[in-house]
Amino acid sequence: MNAHPLMEAVQVLAFDIFGTVVDWHGSIVREMAALHPGVDGDAFARAWRDGYQPAMAPIREGRRGWTLIDTLHREILDAILPRFGLGHLDEAARAHLNRVWHRLDAWPDSVEGLTRLKRRYTITTLSNGNIGLLTDMAKRAGLPWDCILSAEVFRAYKPDPAVYRGAAKVFDRQPEQVMLVAAHHDDLASARACGLHTAYIERPLEFGAAHVKEVSPRPGNSLHAASLMALADQLGC
Amino acid sequence: MNAHPLMEAVQVLAFDIFGTVVDWHGSIVREMAALHPGVDGDAFARAWRDGYQPAMAPIREGRRGWTLIDTLHREILDAILPRFGLGHLDEAARAHLNRVWHRLDAWPDSVEGLTRLKRRYTITTLSNGNIGLLTDMAKRAGLPWDCILSAEVFRAYKPDPAVYRGAAKVFDRQPEQVMLVAAHHDDLASARACGLHTAYIERPLEFGAAHVKEVSPRPGNSLHAASLMALADQLGC
Repeated sequence: MNAHPLMEAVQVLAFDIFGTVVDWHGSIVREMAALHPGVDGDAFARAWRDGYQPAMAPIREGRRGWTLIDTLHREILDAILPRFGLGHLDEAARAHLNRVWHRLDAWPDSVEGLTRLKRRYTITTLSNGNIGLLTDMAKRAGLPWDCILSAEVFRAYKPDPAVYRGAAKVFDRQPEQVMLVAAHHDDLASARACGLHTAYIERPLEFGAAHVKEVSPRPGNSLHAASLMALADQLGC
Repeated sequence: MNAHPLMEAVQVLAFDIFGTVVDWHGSIVREMAALHPGVDGDAFARAWRDGYQPAMAPIREGRRGWTLIDTLHREILDAILPRFGLGHLDEAARAHLNRVWHRLDAWPDSVEGLTRLKRRYTITTLSNGNIGLLTDMAKRAGLPWDCILSAEVFRAYKPDPAVYRGAAKVFDRQPEQVMLVAAHHDDLASARACGLHTAYIERPLEFGAAHVKEVSPRPGNSLHAASLMALADQLGC
């Protein structure tokens, strides 16, 4: 299959991670079922993730110094545990649970899709997750990244333009030679405003089967694909 | 083979790149033989590399702002070209030649040695080379890194302690859980001063067959190995 004509100029694919490449909701539900079977894993996973954007806000707004996602995840965890009857967990149990974000499972199509895309493109993470988290995750899940790029490198969280522009600069490329691949329209819109191409990936089950996400195409994205395998098809990889 | 008992606690192997994992001298000699066969490739490669430490010095000493190795390599190149009768090269030729540092060949043992070491350890670059350079190099040479760490992440050049300590911090490890692997005693000594373990790799031909490097063991290093394959043997990988 030939590559999409628009995409001939793209040389770097930068991937959002949580929800796009890995299934945070399903992974946390499975981990909770094993560790704390009495807890509503679906509600717990969504409560943890609900704290994510508010936790980054003070850093984005300059009201708090640079702080890694590992630390923010832990603060949110400590805040929600009592609500789920887990306020008694000790330090070791909390530290272990917090590292579930390093142990997230990939969506079924991610490893093969990335492996195909890697043949033709430089593939890198471009996540708000910290470098250590992304490295542990990739090693465990077999994600074949060429590079691990994180907000940590730029000391700025998406959607700060410094992250999208920084990714192009790291590879000495123009913004239009880079495409952000993500399952979130706000992330893609911010990348597009910086001149990057964008590919939307449908992840209807990101929030679990009980909360199916609307994934119909929206204008503005360069590509729209049902999975990373479908993206590889569209790009002729 | 069992792992060296000292090494059970090590979880991350951080690799110096130029000279340790890739053969900068031989690669530049081969490239010059193809592009500019009239030039003494051995002298040219050594002249270029001779400019490397002096180019970083003003940045280390705070007299110059943060500048990537790609830029420093280009400045050194521009300075030495006339001496080798290549002062006439145009911008495109200079830009292409400068990117030879992205195209360096691995030593023959590197890919297999790293592949074995990766089974047991997180393996990362820890180089003064910039992220884009290291990513291009790894993709071309097939170096199977778990992570690309560069001075660029820490905005400090080795032997600044911020680089060695930063590598441990990125992975949320104590310094003694990280081992620097390098073919240069000064790099290793600086890492050791920060609490890292160190492994010396013999690269007698780093400066070419006409300038064999003395590689006998010196006190202080945790391990001494003839190659990355030999290091994998010693670590039981």
